[in-house]
Amino acid sequence: MLQKTKKMTDAGKAHGFKTDFERIFHPKRIAIVGVSADESSGGFGAGMYRAISAMGFEGEIFLVNPKGGMISGLNIFRRIEDIPEQIDFAIIAVTARLVPEALEACRKKGAAGAEILSSGFSELGTKEGRQLDLQLKEIAARGIRVVGPNCFGIYCPKSGLTMLPGPDLSRISGPVAFLAQSGGMAIDFAHAARWMGIRFSKVVSFGNGTDLRETDLLHYLKDDPETQVISMYIEGINDGDTFFREIKAAAGKKPVIVLKGGLSQAGARSVASHTSSMGGSRVIWQSVLKQAGALQVHNKDELAQASMAFALLPQRAFKSISIVGGGGAIGVTACDIAETYGIGVPPFSDDLQARIGDHLPRPGSSALNPVDVANPFVAPPILKEVLLAAAEDEQVELQIIVSLLFHYGTIARMFNKPIAEVVPFRELAEAVRDVVDRTGKPVVAVLPNAKRGLGNMEITQMIAMARQEYIDRDIPVFDELHDAIRAIANVNIYYGGRNHENRQSG
Amino acid sequence: MLQKTKKMTDAGKAHGFKTDFERIFHPKRIAIVGVSADESSGGFGAGMYRAISAMGFEGEIFLVNPKGGMISGLNIFRRIEDIPEQIDFAIIAVTARLVPEALEACRKKGAAGAEILSSGFSELGTKEGRQLDLQLKEIAARGIRVVGPNCFGIYCPKSGLTMLPGPDLSRISGPVAFLAQSGGMAIDFAHAARWMGIRFSKVVSFGNGTDLRETDLLHYLKDDPETQVISMYIEGINDGDTFFREIKAAAGKKPVIVLKGGLSQAGARSVASHTSSMGGSRVIWQSVLKQAGALQVHNKDELAQASMAFALLPQRAFKSISIVGGGGAIGVTACDIAETYGIGVPPFSDDLQARIGDHLPRPGSSALNPVDVANPFVAPPILKEVLLAAAEDEQVELQIIVSLLFHYGTIARMFNKPIAEVVPFRELAEAVRDVVDRTGKPVVAVLPNAKRGLGNMEITQMIAMARQEYIDRDIPVFDELHDAIRAIANVNIYYGGRNHENRQSG
Repeated sequence: MLQKTKKMTDAGKAHGFKTDFERIFHPKRIAIVGVSADESSGGFGAGMYRAISAMGFEGEIFLVNPKGGMISGLNIFRRIEDIPEQIDFAIIAVTARLVPEALEACRKKGAAGAEILSSGFSELGTKEGRQLDLQLKEIAARGIRVVGPNCFGIYCPKSGLTMLPGPDLSRISGPVAFLAQSGGMAIDFAHAARWMGIRFSKVVSFGNGTDLRETDLLHYLKDDPETQVISMYIEGINDGDTFFREIKAAAGKKPVIVLKGGLSQAGARSVASHTSSMGGSRVIWQSVLKQAGALQVHNKDELAQASMAFALLPQRAFKSISIVGGGGAIGVTACDIAETYGIGVPPFSDDLQARIGDHLPRPGSSALNPVDVANPFVAPPILKEVLLAAAEDEQVELQIIVSLLFHYGTIARMFNKPIAEVVPFRELAEAVRDVVDRTGKPVVAVLPNAKRGLGNMEITQMIAMARQEYIDRDIPVFDELHDAIRAIANVNIYYGGRNHENRQSG
Repeated sequence: MLQKTKKMTDAGKAHGFKTDFERIFHPKRIAIVGVSADESSGGFGAGMYRAISAMGFEGEIFLVNPKGGMISGLNIFRRIEDIPEQIDFAIIAVTARLVPEALEACRKKGAAGAEILSSGFSELGTKEGRQLDLQLKEIAARGIRVVGPNCFGIYCPKSGLTMLPGPDLSRISGPVAFLAQSGGMAIDFAHAARWMGIRFSKVVSFGNGTDLRETDLLHYLKDDPETQVISMYIEGINDGDTFFREIKAAAGKKPVIVLKGGLSQAGARSVASHTSSMGGSRVIWQSVLKQAGALQVHNKDELAQASMAFALLPQRAFKSISIVGGGGAIGVTACDIAETYGIGVPPFSDDLQARIGDHLPRPGSSALNPVDVANPFVAPPILKEVLLAAAEDEQVELQIIVSLLFHYGTIARMFNKPIAEVVPFRELAEAVRDVVDRTGKPVVAVLPNAKRGLGNMEITQMIAMARQEYIDRDIPVFDELHDAIRAIANVNIYYGGRNHENRQSG
């Protein structure tokens, strides 16, 4: 797989024409081929039209279906050829055997690219399926880049393109690009990203990856100024050499985070039936990704959490941290987790302990590091003083604050008030933001919720509100301390062996 | 630590009297010493009175405070001696230096035990603190067992005793006992257990563990017919030999799950300031727990999830499973995780695949195992047929069903209905329960939620409702597939090396 002496195909030059990614990701005019005027049909084409409309796509949309008709007052063209304008991008959702003809027609209409949502190609494992894929490849080589088939398409918040079934994704752009063959993985990641505060430059589900796939997309994203972090879920790759070269080049310029699925025997078997790609052994992948300088993660939560950390934290490693929380077991647990991930929690000097201790209720508190503030109800101004003081320790490169806000349920009950009124979550987020600005050292927030049941939905909602306050201030938030520390450790793995200036100058 | 030739003290015979645990856990008459009639004082005593009242404790409660007065129409005695009846159990929340006198008075009033919520003892690290603890030990030895000091107390759903600050814990009993020095850990565990569907026999936060602690409690719980699973968070122990003997004896009769905190250097430092116990090295603890036949887990989520699995699954190992879900990446991921944890996902025979495939939408589905049902909207009756068919494979010992219910948000929006009306979560839980009953093979449910944001609270609520439907039918539910498989793997570790009949006959 890593025989670098083998002839390489340059991902950027695979076709005899220059790919116009600008028109693919930010199209002005799109065609949706395979919409039905019968809204109850629930087809992908009509669903995509509704989704893109809901996203507020500002360009022109041309709908195509041989039966004609109208949807929401918009005329449906019977043939792609009938579209009166040149198009930039096409979304194709017709039955598999009709896809090649539709793709060719879109190419003739000037489309720089098309996403093919339809399935029924090589992933079936049939001769017919493979031949259809080959036809697509041939048409693509004539001048239209193809995303798919058997995919959920492109989500680009800036342009308003969205993937299946996503009418409810964010229009706010951000630094993270996400690539996956699997549509399910891509849409789930995009949804999770929304509440986690991860903003995207673009998300691409490329399904069978008949034409455009990880290599070409890495090549493009490496130099995409809107992308600062590249996250990927990979089931299999087609061309090991090119992949290695492209991921290494990309990881040299910006963090590339990879979740490789199908590393088990059964997983590899499952990959074959999912997106008709080749899997690969666990050891080979570990080695390849390490050599390439990419960061390997091990499940989708870790992938999302690392993506958030890379997007929101300064571009460097954090070897030594302070932890502030209310409840001693948190301090003990924090030390255990930090040690597991190779992150130091240095005890503060006696002087610093004394100064921090002056802010804390006694008994029950500890100013050692972790700082145990003794109870979950310590007010934000006090927590702010503690964080400001802890940041004075030169060893502290990052701070974590753990707030057990769910305990306010008891107080809300005592005073018979809605919990959102008694929890000072906005003041907390403001205090933390101010600490970051004044100290220049990042703070990561942890908001566990031990009360997630049906009887406590107002607590779950309050914690979602608290999370949003942090997100609005670009403070990374995690559910659990373990998640936060693992994400920081992942940032450390990427930046640990590098010149910290690499990325800015890249 | 494991020098078994050293003289051992028998936890059950440490005192010259027989401990009446029945009167401690199920008291008929309790005294709360240190309540203030001034409700705004927020003291632990008054808080505990409110909490126990909210729990609906059916016995008699006697309140004590030198100032006298009334709370909610209940007279406050000025002195413990004034209580007109013998008491079974006392809750003491007066300032530390007054605790010994109060404890002695409670002993004289016939209490079998007392929990001391007050802090200010040996955890301070001062001579005075240590001496106060010694005084408590001396009084305890005369005939009253002490839980604490510096603890959150006892929660026993059957009797209505609750721990700080828990007015909102469940009154429904179950098979799990939980022990922790840390009050914060105990109350958080109890809260998390509630929405997870873990039911308790008793929970004890014993703080400094001056008298009653892990060894005595293990000794008692080993033979407690109401306890089938023992979970513990340990920071430190006092007597290694007795601990080893008691945990080994308990683990020989029922699963004992241990989270050991303070295994890191910094963690051990933090333990000292938290509950004044000794920590211990990582390797020693691993070895001790393994030799004792107890199961070691590594964080509190894993602890809770394993507790749930032991409580709800049949008492045996599950080496080979089937997985049913909608969305191919789930299948791939599932195989990877299962392999990591040493659990098989055997491919089905062609015949079985054909029969399962007949129920599934095509294309996009796979009946291989994992079974990919192609989309998240497959109806419960079909899923039921798939599960029934998959259970016919003799290799399958347990099934996992992953339902991406959050995707129904799109359908709810399309039909403009509340999501709880369009998601067939009750039918799903009923179908799964029926499959378990008909096949005799357990099914574990996984309900991920990628849409947890403020804008999707109705989805979060719907998933909590779906979880409750499963819990009401004794089906274990996890948020993520990884959590489910790890919990099953933990069950396998415990039962893997044992005669499966051990526990029933124990």
